[in-house]
Amino acid sequence: MEIYRGKRLSIEKREIILPSGTKKERVVIHPGGAVAILPVEGDDCYLIRQYRFAIADYILEAPAGTIDEGEEPITTAHRELIEETGMEAGTLVPKGWIYSSPGYTDERIWLYLARDLSPSSAYAMDDDEIIEVIRVPIKDLWPMVADGRIVDAKTICLICRCLQ
Amino acid sequence: MEIYRGKRLSIEKREIILPSGTKKERVVIHPGGAVAILPVEGDDCYLIRQYRFAIADYILEAPAGTIDEGEEPITTAHRELIEETGMEAGTLVPKGWIYSSPGYTDERIWLYLARDLSPSSAYAMDDDEIIEVIRVPIKDLWPMVADGRIVDAKTICLICRCLQ
Repeated sequence: MEIYRGKRLSIEKREIILPSGTKKERVVIHPGGAVAILPVEGDDCYLIRQYRFAIADYILEAPAGTIDEGEEPITTAHRELIEETGMEAGTLVPKGWIYSSPGYTDERIWLYLARDLSPSSAYAMDDDEIIEVIRVPIKDLWPMVADGRIVDAKTICLICRCLQ
Repeated sequence: MEIYRGKRLSIEKREIILPSGTKKERVVIHPGGAVAILPVEGDDCYLIRQYRFAIADYILEAPAGTIDEGEEPITTAHRELIEETGMEAGTLVPKGWIYSSPGYTDERIWLYLARDLSPSSAYAMDDDEIIEVIRVPIKDLWPMVADGRIVDAKTICLICRCLQ
């Protein structure tokens, strides 16, 4: 049973039968797919500091965004990188995908390493977003994951897939 | 406005005002907090293969579970490790926390490295769960993250925080 439908995100309530035979109610969130991108230039990369309403705080993340209906994830990655950083990627290397929280959502996030960056002529920041672009030495990423300066799960997964 | 309240998870619809002045509707999911644990024994660790209703598939994950009302995360970690693997941890090393998906949820997951494992006398598997415990050489974890055998975000973050 659908209990909410937004422009993208929908929420469904399901009755499931456990191996024990017990019936339980489970909620499943369908946020649609998303992408996250690590743009790299020489020894540095770019992250963004962004205000997130859900946590009522600023957080350091990789550029990311949601896949439009029917859009290929790599097209989303090109578009979101431009919208969030003003940079265009000459090369996007796919780094697989992850499930963000499979206990209650089917959300998948596709990961990309971006190279051959250049300023985009199509740059127009999305006015829904409060974003500051930050240049970070690649060698600082692991220490930042370790000490909790980076706490965003998709960003940590992206760093793993790109650097490990 | 609350649009759903389950036993643990609740969902709220908020009207927010963007920097541009536009009003928008956002949904925020409050699943409560959770923990994930990497139990290590010699050169190996234990993961679980678990059926997840939200993705209608089995997935390889670290033992994990949700924090009960008022419970300390480290207490949850002890309890969930026993419930999911039958092992008790002599030592739980805190490895910080992560936000699973701060675009639409405030869920935090606390991460622990478990050592000094012994069989638990309190072992009784939760009948809500369909779980197989799998012993994995630690040296295989990075290749499994890289090639997509491990796609669960919290498990990748936990491996990063424990091994990097």
